[in-house]
Amino acid sequence: MEKTTERFTIAHGSGGELTNQLLESETFEILQNEYLQKKHDGAVFELSGKLAFTTDSYVVSPLFFPGGNIGDLAVNGTVNDLAMCGARAKYLSLSFILEEGFSIDEFHTILLSIRKAADKADVLIVTGDTKVVERGKGDKIFINTSGIGQVHPNANIDAANIEIGDKILISGPVASHGMAIMSVREGLEFESQIRSDTASVQEQVMTLLDEFGQDIHFLRDPTRGGVATVLNEIARQMHLGISVDERKIPVREQVRSACEMLGIDPLYVANEGTFLVWVKAEASEMALEKLQAVLPTGQQAAVIGSVVAEHPGQVIIRTEIGGRRVVAMPSGEQLPRIC
Amino acid sequence: MEKTTERFTIAHGSGGELTNQLLESETFEILQNEYLQKKHDGAVFELSGKLAFTTDSYVVSPLFFPGGNIGDLAVNGTVNDLAMCGARAKYLSLSFILEEGFSIDEFHTILLSIRKAADKADVLIVTGDTKVVERGKGDKIFINTSGIGQVHPNANIDAANIEIGDKILISGPVASHGMAIMSVREGLEFESQIRSDTASVQEQVMTLLDEFGQDIHFLRDPTRGGVATVLNEIARQMHLGISVDERKIPVREQVRSACEMLGIDPLYVANEGTFLVWVKAEASEMALEKLQAVLPTGQQAAVIGSVVAEHPGQVIIRTEIGGRRVVAMPSGEQLPRIC
Repeated sequence: MEKTTERFTIAHGSGGELTNQLLESETFEILQNEYLQKKHDGAVFELSGKLAFTTDSYVVSPLFFPGGNIGDLAVNGTVNDLAMCGARAKYLSLSFILEEGFSIDEFHTILLSIRKAADKADVLIVTGDTKVVERGKGDKIFINTSGIGQVHPNANIDAANIEIGDKILISGPVASHGMAIMSVREGLEFESQIRSDTASVQEQVMTLLDEFGQDIHFLRDPTRGGVATVLNEIARQMHLGISVDERKIPVREQVRSACEMLGIDPLYVANEGTFLVWVKAEASEMALEKLQAVLPTGQQAAVIGSVVAEHPGQVIIRTEIGGRRVVAMPSGEQLPRIC
Repeated sequence: MEKTTERFTIAHGSGGELTNQLLESETFEILQNEYLQKKHDGAVFELSGKLAFTTDSYVVSPLFFPGGNIGDLAVNGTVNDLAMCGARAKYLSLSFILEEGFSIDEFHTILLSIRKAADKADVLIVTGDTKVVERGKGDKIFINTSGIGQVHPNANIDAANIEIGDKILISGPVASHGMAIMSVREGLEFESQIRSDTASVQEQVMTLLDEFGQDIHFLRDPTRGGVATVLNEIARQMHLGISVDERKIPVREQVRSACEMLGIDPLYVANEGTFLVWVKAEASEMALEKLQAVLPTGQQAAVIGSVVAEHPGQVIIRTEIGGRRVVAMPSGEQLPRIC
């Protein structure tokens, strides 16, 4: 498509001629595959066995940030939610809510990122929807992706499988996504840019399941609310204690500086390409080595804590200076519209 | 839940304590089932064979209208998109984008409608997501539902199956949904209220497929843009002519009056519980009888036209006064935010 200064109008969402032109020239052309080609109300395919199904709406602001944009975020986020179920993503749906006046050029850029991220995760976008709302009734673009994945034959991911003694691994450094967004919002400048970690973690998860199968008890990606929130949710839900070693939590130097500057604890900051693994203690060292071997972020993977019999329902952290404190659930708003 | 004057705040969307309270006390309580109970990033289930997958975002305004609200619309719309693939809905996802300040009481009412519509269509809501955006960056509530259905063993629904000679049936009177929305927006008053036709058409479709299987060539529900838009899309896509008899198109008296008053052609108005069937000519009379037997709207089902060799790509209507005219694709905006 040629560069254009055109913007969306309400008529683009009405199901008429303009909708048709938009869908044909843009969405179908960029995302084309045999399923979308049918232009039907849904896609039909054969799939059998244990399936995973997930959904997320993306409202991130700003739309473009170092390391990604709302488009690849929407693909990676849903691929990762499927991975957290132990599943390989097969089919995605894609639904847009566009605000009148949103730039068609920016839409085009986002579509290209969606296609690229989908190709990288080897997932097909097979069905979609576009709505347009009046100016001031939306915010440029919101994207929903839902996904269907096929569960790995060795996988049995369930919080009920978490046992006392399980080690908790993290797949890479924390807080990069949230701080990339914040540094744009706050206009912070660093020597090198803080980039979001937005990426599919599907291959890392599949590698772990190939090797360790049922010893992988649980998976969760610490998106909104960060590592602290996920650990608290699991501790409460399963009435188990979680003990964490602050010194073991990998944080990139630049990210740590930004957190200090803004007075934000990296444990509460969103990640979009990093995940937590609850693994049987005996397998934890080998699982860590396996994770560390998967580039680019794997070399910073770490065992950050374990599941304990003490303080059920609570997350206790051993701090860098040797003290111990409760990691609370965040109560108010930390970072709105991070994803 | 007790009646409350509380409203959503940004913190409800941040993944912290308020998100937790909201999800636990409201969403999980009303929609509860074994899948949601796991509170994981996605749902896992066994399903095999030919599946259908679809998505839609709902931005209807006003949220509440005679005959329904955005909640049951979001369930019925996605169940119907699956039905148009010849599939029975099995699992739905549910994703909310809430505007800061939106009434928690209204949210509660919408949730109850969602549960009721899901029960009626015998579909489970198994995974979800909630985001909150700042005041003025959304419009109260947007809902995305995506759905997975199991394709009927007799079904082979594909526009490529449409043949010259096929009859086109409509399952009930047209334009009720769009005119229900318009009459609220325009403050029109009639002797009796115009009610939306929002409803699941799943049972009607399954009955047709049970009996007529492969003779049902194609299905499509005329939502945005109405019957005229769907017929045009199919005529163009398949390079076939479509001939329609205006006198055969069922329109409720009240709806017809409202259309005349507002100068709107009912053929272009959205439906949310009505569908079009392309059926082999030999089976069309029996299929019509079958549709007419399914209450409450079936008694007005009708054969409205047929697929012809003449004028490929065009829809020609024989008007009530006996003339013939082209039914054009709507170019501009007719009725924004109808669904």
